[in-house]
Amino acid sequence: MQYPEPIAKLIDSYMKLPGIGQKTATRLAFFTIDMKDETVNDFARSLISVKRDLHFCSVCGNITEEDPCEICRDTTRDRSTILVVEEPKDVMALEKVREYHGLYHVLHGVISPMEGTGPEDINLPTLIKRLHNDEVKEVIIATNATTEGEATAMYLSRLIKPAGIKVTRLAHGLSVGSDIEYADEVTLLKAVEGRREL
Amino acid sequence: MQYPEPIAKLIDSYMKLPGIGQKTATRLAFFTIDMKDETVNDFARSLISVKRDLHFCSVCGNITEEDPCEICRDTTRDRSTILVVEEPKDVMALEKVREYHGLYHVLHGVISPMEGTGPEDINLPTLIKRLHNDEVKEVIIATNATTEGEATAMYLSRLIKPAGIKVTRLAHGLSVGSDIEYADEVTLLKAVEGRREL
Repeated sequence: MQYPEPIAKLIDSYMKLPGIGQKTATRLAFFTIDMKDETVNDFARSLISVKRDLHFCSVCGNITEEDPCEICRDTTRDRSTILVVEEPKDVMALEKVREYHGLYHVLHGVISPMEGTGPEDINLPTLIKRLHNDEVKEVIIATNATTEGEATAMYLSRLIKPAGIKVTRLAHGLSVGSDIEYADEVTLLKAVEGRREL
Repeated sequence: MQYPEPIAKLIDSYMKLPGIGQKTATRLAFFTIDMKDETVNDFARSLISVKRDLHFCSVCGNITEEDPCEICRDTTRDRSTILVVEEPKDVMALEKVREYHGLYHVLHGVISPMEGTGPEDINLPTLIKRLHNDEVKEVIIATNATTEGEATAMYLSRLIKPAGIKVTRLAHGLSVGSDIEYADEVTLLKAVEGRREL
């Protein structure tokens, strides 16, 4: 006996999500059957809405309901600084800190020769165009501290510096609250290299 | 800055699923944005369908698209045996074995005084009604091997036996492929109690 078709299809859909295998998908599908009608309808509606109502900002590449996005439209923000990140969720993470008041640029990826992703595959042209604007004085590169993130940072730095714009990179070192004994070697090395006078 | 509303809503929806917290829900929501339109539409459709097209079989309580369900309608199945389980997914698990050819009855829960669930809160009346049918010769109780499952099994046994119907319980013992040294004490006890002659 097979699962009734509606369940089988829902299990398939759940399995398309990252980190969800057959067993979890089955559990989620049976859980869904017991959920309130209203909750499931909301779920379905938000799935549709996330694809229909969200777009990428034509200026910075962040996800937004309106183009340009809230941040790019905000005239109170410092337009002389652009912080470059890999993904839209990095923008959200940085905004939560409430300390950075400049603009963003979302690359939607990194340069990764291993995966065949070159500079032409990420959201670079619009960044270059933005830099032609005389207002921009500093570009902060906040790609992840992975091999690809570092390579992308180097590439951007070489591309932007000749234009006379200051290029900086987020500090790497020990996480706040972490123990030195558990830190990996590369992080420790970065922490020593980036030490500051007290 | 808040997440744009469509994402915030989708994160909320994902968080209603069991075992999915804020971080995982956020990851799934951002993953959904990058999924194909068609895949997300299918997902939304199967969510709606699972609530709209599935019903409980009026005979056995299993989930089904048509009432009565496929198994209850199947005239080739042995109508003298009813196997009682807690949830519809238990029916699926047993059907996968392809060894049992009788009928099922889904209780949709167990008797649990701790949680205030009594015999009147589970799908018992229809089971009693089915037993009035002279065809039924054996009831196999396949509730889970938990305290509540055992209590429910005892309750059912006392209820059904006086009617002259054979009541059996699935065997408990060591899982096939498991090591004795890692088995818990209760399982080992059940395995010794239920030993069989070779």
